Amino acid sequence: MASQKNGSLKHKLYSIIFEAETPAGRTFDILLLIIIVASVVVVSLESVVSLRRDHLHLFQALEWTFTILFTIEYFLRIYSSQKPLKYVFSFFGIIDFLAIIPTYLSLFVVGSQYLLVIRVFRLLRIARIFRLTRFVNEGKVLSKALSASLTKITVFLGVVVMMVIVVGTLMYVIEGRQSGYTSIPISIYWAIVTLTTVGFGDITPTTPLGQLLASCLMIMGYGIIAVPTGIVSVELSRADKLDATSRVCPNCHKEGHSSDAKYCDNCAYPLRGNT
Amino acid sequence: MASQKNGSLKHKLYSIIFEAETPAGRTFDILLLIIIVASVVVVSLESVVSLRRDHLHLFQALEWTFTILFTIEYFLRIYSSQKPLKYVFSFFGIIDFLAIIPTYLSLFVVGSQYLLVIRVFRLLRIARIFRLTRFVNEGKVLSKALSASLTKITVFLGVVVMMVIVVGTLMYVIEGRQSGYTSIPISIYWAIVTLTTVGFGDITPTTPLGQLLASCLMIMGYGIIAVPTGIVSVELSRADKLDATSRVCPNCHKEGHSSDAKYCDNCAYPLRGNT
Amino acid sequence: MASQKNGSLKHKLYSIIFEAETPAGRTFDILLLIIIVASVVVVSLESVVSLRRDHLHLFQALEWTFTILFTIEYFLRIYSSQKPLKYVFSFFGIIDFLAIIPTYLSLFVVGSQYLLVIRVFRLLRIARIFRLTRFVNEGKVLSKALSASLTKITVFLGVVVMMVIVVGTLMYVIEGRQSGYTSIPISIYWAIVTLTTVGFGDITPTTPLGQLLASCLMIMGYGIIAVPTGIVSVELSRADKLDATSRVCPNCHKEGHSSDAKYCDNCAYPLRGNT
Amino acid sequence: MASQKNGSLKHKLYSIIFEAETPAGRTFDILLLIIIVASVVVVSLESVVSLRRDHLHLFQALEWTFTILFTIEYFLRIYSSQKPLKYVFSFFGIIDFLAIIPTYLSLFVVGSQYLLVIRVFRLLRIARIFRLTRFVNEGKVLSKALSASLTKITVFLGVVVMMVIVVGTLMYVIEGRQSGYTSIPISIYWAIVTLTTVGFGDITPTTPLGQLLASCLMIMGYGIIAVPTGIVSVELSRADKLDATSRVCPNCHKEGHSSDAKYCDNCAYPLRGNT
Repeated sequence: MASQKNGSLKHKLYSIIFEAETPAGRTFDILLLIIIVASVVVVSLESVVSLRRDHLHLFQALEWTFTILFTIEYFLRIYSSQKPLKYVFSFFGIIDFLAIIPTYLSLFVVGSQYLLVIRVFRLLRIARIFRLTRFVNEGKVLSKALSASLTKITVFLGVVVMMVIVVGTLMYVIEGRQSGYTSIPISIYWAIVTLTTVGFGDITPTTPLGQLLASCLMIMGYGIIAVPTGIVSVELSRADKLDATSRVCPNCHKEGHSSDAKYCDNCAYPLRGNT
Repeated sequence: MASQKNGSLKHKLYSIIFEAETPAGRTFDILLLIIIVASVVVVSLESVVSLRRDHLHLFQALEWTFTILFTIEYFLRIYSSQKPLKYVFSFFGIIDFLAIIPTYLSLFVVGSQYLLVIRVFRLLRIARIFRLTRFVNEGKVLSKALSASLTKITVFLGVVVMMVIVVGTLMYVIEGRQSGYTSIPISIYWAIVTLTTVGFGDITPTTPLGQLLASCLMIMGYGIIAVPTGIVSVELSRADKLDATSRVCPNCHKEGHSSDAKYCDNCAYPLRGNT
Repeated sequence: MASQKNGSLKHKLYSIIFEAETPAGRTFDILLLIIIVASVVVVSLESVVSLRRDHLHLFQALEWTFTILFTIEYFLRIYSSQKPLKYVFSFFGIIDFLAIIPTYLSLFVVGSQYLLVIRVFRLLRIARIFRLTRFVNEGKVLSKALSASLTKITVFLGVVVMMVIVVGTLMYVIEGRQSGYTSIPISIYWAIVTLTTVGFGDITPTTPLGQLLASCLMIMGYGIIAVPTGIVSVELSRADKLDATSRVCPNCHKEGHSSDAKYCDNCAYPLRGNT
Repeated sequence: MASQKNGSLKHKLYSIIFEAETPAGRTFDILLLIIIVASVVVVSLESVVSLRRDHLHLFQALEWTFTILFTIEYFLRIYSSQKPLKYVFSFFGIIDFLAIIPTYLSLFVVGSQYLLVIRVFRLLRIARIFRLTRFVNEGKVLSKALSASLTKITVFLGVVVMMVIVVGTLMYVIEGRQSGYTSIPISIYWAIVTLTTVGFGDITPTTPLGQLLASCLMIMGYGIIAVPTGIVSVELSRADKLDATSRVCPNCHKEGHSSDAKYCDNCAYPLRGNT
């Protein structure tokens, strides 16, 4: 009987921590979201030298509060899981572990600034919360449209990469070291900065020929942005149409019949009227 | 009878000041538009040191002219309203009040430069005038399409914000203080400048690894602009289609007649009038 | 009879100079195109100090050659026109006059560098040649789509201008003179540079609050580019569809019936089959 | 019989080197891809002064390994071709020759840094491998859509070029030499940098009038990017639709059946197989 009670507690904890259907589950998710965001904000502000110098104790107190809260949550997750090991080695299990370990390690390993930065990846824990909400459907439509156009986008990126390498090399030859094009990799970096219309201005062409080539690259970069945009528009438009006409055949269960179809195009069974 | 005359005057004033159907109302709106724009231009130019020094008296004269005109208008609005209190505490009522109060306050509060800047928000008063014109329909189509794609755009912005925080933190670790990445917030600011392809160039990566990561961020920023563009295109296209397919033939039920069609183009049955 | 011969010569000249159907007309257009481009290139190169110093006589010789050629062409245009005065005061007549007058004026007016720059507007003469070619149809489709979406684009630009003025003023207050935001007009200029993702980097925010506001502005600028793109896509797509289904009613001559229409939707007259 | 064996060897080599259907052919392509990429990476890194100084012998050894491998491949390609001369003077034959000749020439011609840069064009050899894969279809759709909208894009680019020349010239007059607008070509270069929203910031306007004109140019550049994007979207969407509506019902002639439909969804008539 104690075991049953225990099992019931475990089940209740599981539904609160891992699910979002119950009011308690939703409250837990919102609390967790706030703590994660607060924790990332604290990590960010701690990196500002003047703030760290003036409020060192405050930062340390906050950091330990967050770490202890996340540690309790981590062990509750392990406890309430049906298969604790599966959770521990899952993607989110590892993220949860990485969210707490740097603070403990900082007690033993001295001066590990880079280690503490790992705490920013706590941010990825937010992804878990969003997995449970209505944003997922929209995310699915977007990622479906993106993956449907993946081959087209790969071709496009391939052409961009080739263009950038060829133009970067030409600029290295034309402009030379004195303008800042000190090597081919740097020149390729400049070509990416230019083609993507970012244009930092840390390296700029100074010879007429270099400026001419840069002008061509800029106009190309300005124009070819149209290609991925067009690809994604068409895919999203197609996904949108399929979504709008998701009629299912009652006989063979094939989906995606268009809104004016009278018969299933897979098994010729008559379809019911549009709704 | 005096009261009726008064009521009639109030009504007439109301239709001139708050509406745009009558010729007098239109003239009032155009005059108001010109005065608002002129007033904002004067506030802007007054901030230029050399102009302010040379033409101080001109600026003060203009400023008081605008303020007195807006004050008269404000009291006329209160007078002609059916429910003056409702107007005073409405959004536009508060904007109208904020448009006149800084100039009067500047008589009593000394050296309140920041207060005077509030006068630029007079610009928001233009929104009221546009509310009355044909631009509203177009604005509605745009804002409807934007709000329909709000969830998709939120997902997209969420991904962008996460990407920017993660890349910003990585750059802080990779580049370090000597390249200008002095803290995580500054590095995130740099990542936003880069991802949005603005590229000020006030902070730029100098290590090969930093330049590689920056290159990836730039190509991503260049590519993912396609996503919001695709989303808005699809929504606008859908709004456009809905607009076009709102008329149905009462005889054969064919949809999608254009707004100026008189007969069904499928069965020649006369269509009812446009709505 | 001499008059008839003269009229025939005039007519022949007219068809060569003003039209592009005959082989002679095409050859004339291509020659003119080359001379205009060459002339603009010479004006551009003449502005380079080192080139001007070394090749002054060459530039002067070329310039007078072009001017004399354009002068001959100008008088031939006047001579061959049916209504010479109408030509002289037409848009292209004035452009043609402006293309030759600066060189002659430079003989009398001393040191008129700015006057000579007018010669670059010879470039606008190219527009005349393109008016005669197949590029015109494409240009018409584009300009039709743009003018159809003009109201939407005006609303969009209005919102952009307001946003830029409000953010510019806020930045002037937040950042102040020491960061380069010396006046409200300069701050608005910076806001335009930022919102349009140009990002010169001549003025950049240095305070944390300014960088936060700048980040918001950049993300907005990155996102709202989707709006005009979506508008133009939808309009071009509509223009494309209309173009593809340009069926005309033989009874009332109404255009733009959709490809599956059986009856004219204006007068109910039966339409002929699709082609 | 030796000749037949020889012919069989030639044929086998041909299918391995020039085709990608057999497992051996695929393995060869993947190996070649890796070697080409490695070779380009080595050429790039060799241009970095510090790396070249420290690892000169390693670079030379790698370079000769790649060159010898490419030389063997080149002669195998000549040997296995049916028409060796046709291969040698084909586009890819010349690229293959240019990929190996600079290294040999560097033995005889002293200090030919620029010659070695030609080796980067080995990159173009990758295009051959992609020609054989499924990426080609996607590439065809993209290039078909681009070439279909070529006239529209030419009109657009023509307008952009004119705008850039006119604004560049105006900026040369307005800003003058002291702001960096030293000649008309430089000013046109600046106008391109600005219109394409790259914005290096090496040259920036400093006079109020110049900043006003620059603001107009930036807003235009920000807006007109919508035009090529819209053009390509419409063309891609059309290509997409053509792809989707290629199947017609032989009974009721309804078009637009999806590629996996077995029966007409309008009259339930069986459809013929996909092609």
